[in-house]
Amino acid sequence: MKLPGWWKMLVVAMCMALLACLQAQELQGHVSIILLGATGDLAKKYLWQGLFQLYLDEVGKGYSFSFHGAALTSTKQGQEFIAKVLESLSCPEDMAPGRCAELRGQFQQLSQYRHLRTSEDYMALSKDIEAQLQHKGLQEAGRIFYFSVPPFAYADIARNINSSCRPGPGAWLRVVLEKPFGHDRLSAQQLATELGSFFQEKEMYRVDHYLGKQAVAQILPFRDQNRKALDGLWNRHHVERVEIIMKETVDAEGRTSFYEEYGVIRDVLQNHLTEVLTLVAMELPHNISSSEAVLRHKLQAFRALRGLQKGSAVLGQYQAYSEQVRREQRKPDSFRSLTPTFAGILVHMDNLRWEGVPFLLMSGKALDERVGYVRILFRNQAYCAQNEKRWVADQSQCLPRQIVFYIGHGELGSPAVLVSRNLFRPSLPSKSWKEVEGRPRLHLFGRPLSDYYAYSPVREQDAYSVLISHIFHGRKDSFITTENLLASWVFWTPLLDSLAHEVPRLYPGGAENGHLLDFEFSGTQLRFSQQQLEQLVPGPGSAPKPSDFQVLQAKYRESPLISAWPEELIAKLAEDIEATAVRAVQRFGEFHLALSGGSSPVPLFEQLATRHYGFPWAHTHLWLVDERCVPLRDPESNFQGLQAHLLQHVRVPHYNVHPMPVHLHQRLCAEEDRGAQMYASEISALVTNSSFDLVLLGMGMDGHTASLFPQSPAGLEGTQLVVLTRSPSKPHERMSLSLPLINRAHKVAVLVMGRMKREITMLVSRVGHEPKKWPISGVLPSSGQLVWYMDYEAFLG
Amino acid sequence: MKLPGWWKMLVVAMCMALLACLQAQELQGHVSIILLGATGDLAKKYLWQGLFQLYLDEVGKGYSFSFHGAALTSTKQGQEFIAKVLESLSCPEDMAPGRCAELRGQFQQLSQYRHLRTSEDYMALSKDIEAQLQHKGLQEAGRIFYFSVPPFAYADIARNINSSCRPGPGAWLRVVLEKPFGHDRLSAQQLATELGSFFQEKEMYRVDHYLGKQAVAQILPFRDQNRKALDGLWNRHHVERVEIIMKETVDAEGRTSFYEEYGVIRDVLQNHLTEVLTLVAMELPHNISSSEAVLRHKLQAFRALRGLQKGSAVLGQYQAYSEQVRREQRKPDSFRSLTPTFAGILVHMDNLRWEGVPFLLMSGKALDERVGYVRILFRNQAYCAQNEKRWVADQSQCLPRQIVFYIGHGELGSPAVLVSRNLFRPSLPSKSWKEVEGRPRLHLFGRPLSDYYAYSPVREQDAYSVLISHIFHGRKDSFITTENLLASWVFWTPLLDSLAHEVPRLYPGGAENGHLLDFEFSGTQLRFSQQQLEQLVPGPGSAPKPSDFQVLQAKYRESPLISAWPEELIAKLAEDIEATAVRAVQRFGEFHLALSGGSSPVPLFEQLATRHYGFPWAHTHLWLVDERCVPLRDPESNFQGLQAHLLQHVRVPHYNVHPMPVHLHQRLCAEEDRGAQMYASEISALVTNSSFDLVLLGMGMDGHTASLFPQSPAGLEGTQLVVLTRSPSKPHERMSLSLPLINRAHKVAVLVMGRMKREITMLVSRVGHEPKKWPISGVLPSSGQLVWYMDYEAFLG
Repeated sequence: MKLPGWWKMLVVAMCMALLACLQAQELQGHVSIILLGATGDLAKKYLWQGLFQLYLDEVGKGYSFSFHGAALTSTKQGQEFIAKVLESLSCPEDMAPGRCAELRGQFQQLSQYRHLRTSEDYMALSKDIEAQLQHKGLQEAGRIFYFSVPPFAYADIARNINSSCRPGPGAWLRVVLEKPFGHDRLSAQQLATELGSFFQEKEMYRVDHYLGKQAVAQILPFRDQNRKALDGLWNRHHVERVEIIMKETVDAEGRTSFYEEYGVIRDVLQNHLTEVLTLVAMELPHNISSSEAVLRHKLQAFRALRGLQKGSAVLGQYQAYSEQVRREQRKPDSFRSLTPTFAGILVHMDNLRWEGVPFLLMSGKALDERVGYVRILFRNQAYCAQNEKRWVADQSQCLPRQIVFYIGHGELGSPAVLVSRNLFRPSLPSKSWKEVEGRPRLHLFGRPLSDYYAYSPVREQDAYSVLISHIFHGRKDSFITTENLLASWVFWTPLLDSLAHEVPRLYPGGAENGHLLDFEFSGTQLRFSQQQLEQLVPGPGSAPKPSDFQVLQAKYRESPLISAWPEELIAKLAEDIEATAVRAVQRFGEFHLALSGGSSPVPLFEQLATRHYGFPWAHTHLWLVDERCVPLRDPESNFQGLQAHLLQHVRVPHYNVHPMPVHLHQRLCAEEDRGAQMYASEISALVTNSSFDLVLLGMGMDGHTASLFPQSPAGLEGTQLVVLTRSPSKPHERMSLSLPLINRAHKVAVLVMGRMKREITMLVSRVGHEPKKWPISGVLPSSGQLVWYMDYEAFLG
Repeated sequence: MKLPGWWKMLVVAMCMALLACLQAQELQGHVSIILLGATGDLAKKYLWQGLFQLYLDEVGKGYSFSFHGAALTSTKQGQEFIAKVLESLSCPEDMAPGRCAELRGQFQQLSQYRHLRTSEDYMALSKDIEAQLQHKGLQEAGRIFYFSVPPFAYADIARNINSSCRPGPGAWLRVVLEKPFGHDRLSAQQLATELGSFFQEKEMYRVDHYLGKQAVAQILPFRDQNRKALDGLWNRHHVERVEIIMKETVDAEGRTSFYEEYGVIRDVLQNHLTEVLTLVAMELPHNISSSEAVLRHKLQAFRALRGLQKGSAVLGQYQAYSEQVRREQRKPDSFRSLTPTFAGILVHMDNLRWEGVPFLLMSGKALDERVGYVRILFRNQAYCAQNEKRWVADQSQCLPRQIVFYIGHGELGSPAVLVSRNLFRPSLPSKSWKEVEGRPRLHLFGRPLSDYYAYSPVREQDAYSVLISHIFHGRKDSFITTENLLASWVFWTPLLDSLAHEVPRLYPGGAENGHLLDFEFSGTQLRFSQQQLEQLVPGPGSAPKPSDFQVLQAKYRESPLISAWPEELIAKLAEDIEATAVRAVQRFGEFHLALSGGSSPVPLFEQLATRHYGFPWAHTHLWLVDERCVPLRDPESNFQGLQAHLLQHVRVPHYNVHPMPVHLHQRLCAEEDRGAQMYASEISALVTNSSFDLVLLGMGMDGHTASLFPQSPAGLEGTQLVVLTRSPSKPHERMSLSLPLINRAHKVAVLVMGRMKREITMLVSRVGHEPKKWPISGVLPSSGQLVWYMDYEAFLG
């Protein structure tokens, strides 16, 4: 029989392809993928499909594969489960059904279940893999262990893998870990240390599946491909705010045992939203395909995050939550959970690019819609000369300009990248992103869809498929390194601790929430926009509010005393200081103010910095009352506090700021460096008659003031203006204005706040002039005025 | 005949009223009002009506009046004119016609025309007034002279009034002046001096009729009555921008002879819009009814205005304008006017309340609508947790929040005060302001009218009526004092000078302007949003643009030379400095940068401050290369320049900034104060090996660098690190790093810019090592790198 020519050619082509395939396989080697927890929900829903997708993408590119579904289930049950899951795997829409069936068949062939519990089981697994490799004459490329198991199982499995299941020399090991990665900084650190004893950093792939969402994964490439357009825009001069949002409609029903332990911040913000934040905020590496560079820049972004405080957050809890917890966890009727199911957080970054730009993070359950997005809203810096009726969407710079990475769901229903048409036409990879078709009635973020260049993925991909492919290709930048994880916990843990006993605002859920969960910021403080009704009507016996009281004027130690609740007290003191400053500048052209350090004056500094627009800072000289003998840049330094809370926010000329010279010739407060004398000369030279216009003092629980301590003779009398002293508490060495110098001031204000000061306040009210026992009792300006500012807690206890 | 009881009572009541009236008149006295230019347009249109309104308001309150309409017109014509005008005077709508006719009759009786030209005429007028007073036995209260005449006539009239027409002792004189008040600072000053020789400041009332517009006049009272709500809002933390707008649809046809001299900035911005600006921006006096306090605060606001530059403005001219000027003023066909008929200006205030808030001023002729308003737009500081479809206008803090003083015209058609309902419910005087009735289809500033609390005047009043009443009551705060006027010209004149030869953008006029006149700001720069087509396609022979050239790399004096157009050169130098800084901080933890003063580095400082987000400022030490022996706060001080252009905008810790100690013990650069030695010790103590990481130098036209001058031996060799030197130009005394210290640096960059440097650049390229003749030739780091940065003009001439 003679074969036709085309048949011959076909055979040759097939043989060549087969050969190429074999060669390629020989070149790349064999990869074993062990899915731990192969019969679990996550595996069933996403991971098997992800592995199949990996197979579809990689088959014929030179690797051979085997897939091991492992679990504690019995072999029979496991096999049945796997068989069922494998039957339901789907191919991309554009693949011919025949081809799909063929490849699924191959994948089924390569996949098997195994019971994996004891160390023997792991040894056996490893031997089987080796035997298979030997049998087929394959080189081993590597092994992937995917931990789809609860965290308590991590250690055992890790130990077994490390001791019995590492691949042969030259082949890599990758272990894939799923959240939660601890509960706070400490537990995360412990878990990381434990895992670190079994695996190297480069071997671990911590999954945050948000990084596999197509719109999230597109953030860096988008920034990279649109560098030219974004270069001038991606900064505090142009960005008004960044919103990073994940809203859910579902609640926690059925999952309260997990949720009660975690809450919305640990569940969504600490991981997903924080990762997204770093992608938006980080400095863009020159080469974004360098995992190392991306990770390094991400860590830099973490370092620039300003610490969060209680006031940086608003918390909510849907009304039915406590009842669900009681039911599911059999709690008594009296049980009320404090776990937040809603949180809004205000994040600021302390770097030049983002300083002052609010990053708003928000997530919650039982909200009015399911949607996730990152929205970068640009400032409106235009004035449009025509009536607004004549504005044209793609030309008017007065209409909102924004870039949105639409993560999914919501009214759009799919991932997307939106760029306002009045901004620029973005460049996106045309193979994987296509323009969204028009939907005339759809409005998003205040504008019709037609106002945006809108792109969505050509092929929607599940996050796990994307990440499994990245694991396979060793793209570590899509995963959470240990450093990254700990940096995130370092950032979130103090807030979580401070919020532990906060009562979240209750909300009904869904559209009924109305404006109840709207929140707004002012400076670094966040609060709900609507006051809660029950707060407006205090019941009988409710604690008195600051506004219920007036500022009280009285006498203390025969000098005027001003007493009030803390807020009013600080406001009054700031007002008085401003009035003194204005008068001094009017009369003498300058104002000499000596300030104490420590934490009490911080709210005063902030009040002065943000509320007193008429303060004559340009003519004010700032002096220190006392200083700790630490370098000025030390966080313990009084000057550092002054810089952070006041100087940074007002315009005092450099040469009007007078830190104490505690650090000379690279040593601290050495007598022979004569720092105290230097400061005294500076005062003599600049301050008329060495009389400060105002000296602000505090009072310690031992009756000390400035850094003049009981039983320590220095600075209490004599002619020295500035002295070195010794504090009973660390750091012991101090520099301080002397009592005689303080008493030359035109005005001395003593600020005393807090219940802790009650005792000394009472004591000092009774003693005479005994500065050696109670230095504060020596404060009495010879021709100036002394005023005491005490809050009610310090004064009335 | 017996009169009924009620009749008797009536008679008694009438007599008492008459008596009270007579007594009151005796108490208050007689006021003579002389309207100069009584037959002119302004008088016809507004002033006679204003005087009648005054009469209506004041009649029966104790004054008697006489009104003298004066002009150069013959007595007969004048009388006829006046008679006609008086016939047409109108009363408020709510006055009964009979009462109106009666009062108009009285007013006509009190009003007469008189021809007023020579000094004899003025003497006669004064005599007539005195005779009338004597005849009727009246006390004189005062005289008002209203100058409704062109400015060239002012001097003569003023002289005549001063010499012949002053009222008797105890009575006041008020002269009312109408703009223009000069053409620039100098002419305004001359006019003011001239008027000042005839009148006291308190006698002069300069009218800016905008201050009489009801919405404008309401700004301060509104701020006062809503202090509590506005206190926290009226500042840079909450205000996003302020727009002060006056749009006209008319053009200048028929008025080009005036307009050609003035243009839109002098016609509208320098006066009307600037006045409004000060009312919005000034610190609110405690007592706004104190004219003195209001005027003082206004002047303070002027002082806080940041100087305008060319880049603070965009200019336009409607297309038909030049043709109109040619026609009306018989100019040749080739004539093109540069007079702007449209201007947008960006104003910033350098005070704590408003720093960073853009104040946008805009006015133009031939625009798409006639409208005037002041709009204060507040920042959106909220995040609304529900989908925008569910936002409720008066609750959602995410919808725009604004306060608008609607001056008039526009779609609303009347003056109004608008306050967004999601802001607060304002308090307005209910006697004079009422809520506007709903108009369902009306949208203003992006929102339906129903989103605002909207108030309009109960009775609309013409600005002149308002002002005439204020003149009568001596309310000087509604008028422009000499200080105020000059402050405004001081502010505007430099801009007007710098714009004198700018070509305004042509616009078609009306709705056709499209987005052509939209403008936007970035920092302090304003530009049109749309590029002009003709600018996009440069014709043949057009000048090359910076971007047409690449950065050129070559050698100069055997060291690397980088040459480019100024913008690229500065960008490259800034990039290189940042790269050096990042490397130094990575390796040593700190970066020591020594900077030269003068004007050349200013654009470099600005580039570094606003574009380099990755610059490690927190770890950078800033040193001075040289300093002038002036106090550090002197504008001549190099440190002052560094502070203004760099330090203010970045966060360098206080203790990393090292000004040269040129000012010690209250004297400048005294040898015995050992300032140079102090600086040298500071360098030795902090800079490893005294080797700066980077020294930035310039080159003078005499070959000097740092403050090392030719023929002056100091600092060119030897062991001294820092030296005192003498400059040939003022201020002569200087402090400078020495050449040996400079040459220890790791890197030295020399920046040379501008055509003026061409000669020295050529010369120095040829000389050898001759620091005594050309100090710059001695710059050669012993183990570091020298790089020259020259712009094309300096390098290629």
